[in-house]
Amino acid sequence: MGDSAAESGFVSTIFVHPVQLRWGECDPAGIIFYPTYFLWFDAAAWNMFAQAGYHAKRMRAENRAMPLVAAGCEFKHPAEQEDRCEVRSRVARWGGKSFVLAHDVVRADGTLLAQGSETRVWGRYASGPGSPLKGESVSAELKALFRAK
Amino acid sequence: MGDSAAESGFVSTIFVHPVQLRWGECDPAGIIFYPTYFLWFDAAAWNMFAQAGYHAKRMRAENRAMPLVAAGCEFKHPAEQEDRCEVRSRVARWGGKSFVLAHDVVRADGTLLAQGSETRVWGRYASGPGSPLKGESVSAELKALFRAK
Amino acid sequence: MGDSAAESGFVSTIFVHPVQLRWGECDPAGIIFYPTYFLWFDAAAWNMFAQAGYHAKRMRAENRAMPLVAAGCEFKHPAEQEDRCEVRSRVARWGGKSFVLAHDVVRADGTLLAQGSETRVWGRYASGPGSPLKGESVSAELKALFRAK
Amino acid sequence: MGDSAAESGFVSTIFVHPVQLRWGECDPAGIIFYPTYFLWFDAAAWNMFAQAGYHAKRMRAENRAMPLVAAGCEFKHPAEQEDRCEVRSRVARWGGKSFVLAHDVVRADGTLLAQGSETRVWGRYASGPGSPLKGESVSAELKALFRAK
Repeated sequence: MGDSAAESGFVSTIFVHPVQLRWGECDPAGIIFYPTYFLWFDAAAWNMFAQAGYHAKRMRAENRAMPLVAAGCEFKHPAEQEDRCEVRSRVARWGGKSFVLAHDVVRADGTLLAQGSETRVWGRYASGPGSPLKGESVSAELKALFRAK
Repeated sequence: MGDSAAESGFVSTIFVHPVQLRWGECDPAGIIFYPTYFLWFDAAAWNMFAQAGYHAKRMRAENRAMPLVAAGCEFKHPAEQEDRCEVRSRVARWGGKSFVLAHDVVRADGTLLAQGSETRVWGRYASGPGSPLKGESVSAELKALFRAK
Repeated sequence: MGDSAAESGFVSTIFVHPVQLRWGECDPAGIIFYPTYFLWFDAAAWNMFAQAGYHAKRMRAENRAMPLVAAGCEFKHPAEQEDRCEVRSRVARWGGKSFVLAHDVVRADGTLLAQGSETRVWGRYASGPGSPLKGESVSAELKALFRAK
Repeated sequence: MGDSAAESGFVSTIFVHPVQLRWGECDPAGIIFYPTYFLWFDAAAWNMFAQAGYHAKRMRAENRAMPLVAAGCEFKHPAEQEDRCEVRSRVARWGGKSFVLAHDVVRADGTLLAQGSETRVWGRYASGPGSPLKGESVSAELKALFRAK
């Protein structure tokens, strides 16, 4: 996926979202319950947009949404309670009205725990949640906010 | 709490919401992670209102909300993965613009696992989520929907 | 993925796990918060094994585990609060020491909401959670439990 | 509850656990889904013990557990997505084999959002999760770890 971004000359900023695995996010096997990774990816995605200027309040005021088309993850090594990790996120690809985010979960000692991706639509509600949602073209201005400096 | 309802002559229907404890709702101790009970209480509360005629779609269409003022639970006996339980819910007390729900979690073998309560406001948005929310008086009509037949 | 199973002559039982979307599983857009689908997939996976004879208590007693290697989902249509759905699950492929589960989420009106998969290892702890986990060969007996009759 | 601790001359350290409200922790009303507060309380409780020297690994190695007897919360003001908050936690009371934790959730601007408490047993497994759990007397040494300096 990163290839397409590379081909088009786009190099994304790497956004970092720190997390620490909680007791309640572990299962009876004593390791991370896997949907927790997707909770982290979603939080990391919102963090990317906030850092790029699209804070939650702005997203809401502008009736923006970024619903998912697909998500996936490969689990490399299990996280354990109290593990401090970073979700390192980047835009892996820009589509016409969508984009792909790539998320790496890296433990404090450098171990790669999981690699995931989210495909999202860059959408806008006619008038807020519940009203029709339409995809909007990804503008050059939007892309520029995520470009590595 | 049930006393006040009893004093006023109100006897609530007992609403039943079946649940089964999932792997991911257990913690490394191998038993239920306690916030799960509150997830069940909230689901049971919405189930009560749906059964009483206030389905989610109606609540949304009428701009209704029932935000919480307080919640609590006593944990009697731990649930284990795959345990089938019932959340047995009733209106324990009607206030002027609020109400108290009482929730008992009972395992299939009859063991009482937890007893909780939620105090909620009967509220209405001026024009949907994000707009000002005001408490509304609990009407005789509303109470009648929850009265035991 | 189903192809490999088909090639090998394996046709899986379709296991059905009913769910209903809760208020707390929806996000501020008023639709399902996507990691909820993975919570459902995990619950559906345990349900498959329970129905096939591997109940939670047996899994624990035999020190068995089925940790994930990968998971993914395509989101077709958003679920809304109170929607009744079925997770329809099958074994899409048997590997040497792993297997792939395919999960379809279908709304009561027949609409396909999401299609996901989980790749899991068939594992065993030396002596319970925390001790070393090793993959075990998927036996003919295990496969037979999931074969369509 | 704080009174009893005060009576006995015990003044607890205030432990601080920072959190930020996520998109997925909000409900269709656009505010915090209330069980999230209990997720935060549990995380804050483990953070207290970790800071006091009882890290997750030590708890596990010593077969310790701190199961809940009761939990409750009063909701003062709703948190919104992206709000940065602190969970400020202290030991409100020491019992013979149990203790009460008090948790205040305070937004970055100083607004008190919620006040909760957890009553927990100081327990120990005979030989790890699944084996019998017994409450242990709260020792003077344990209390000293939480005493304000």
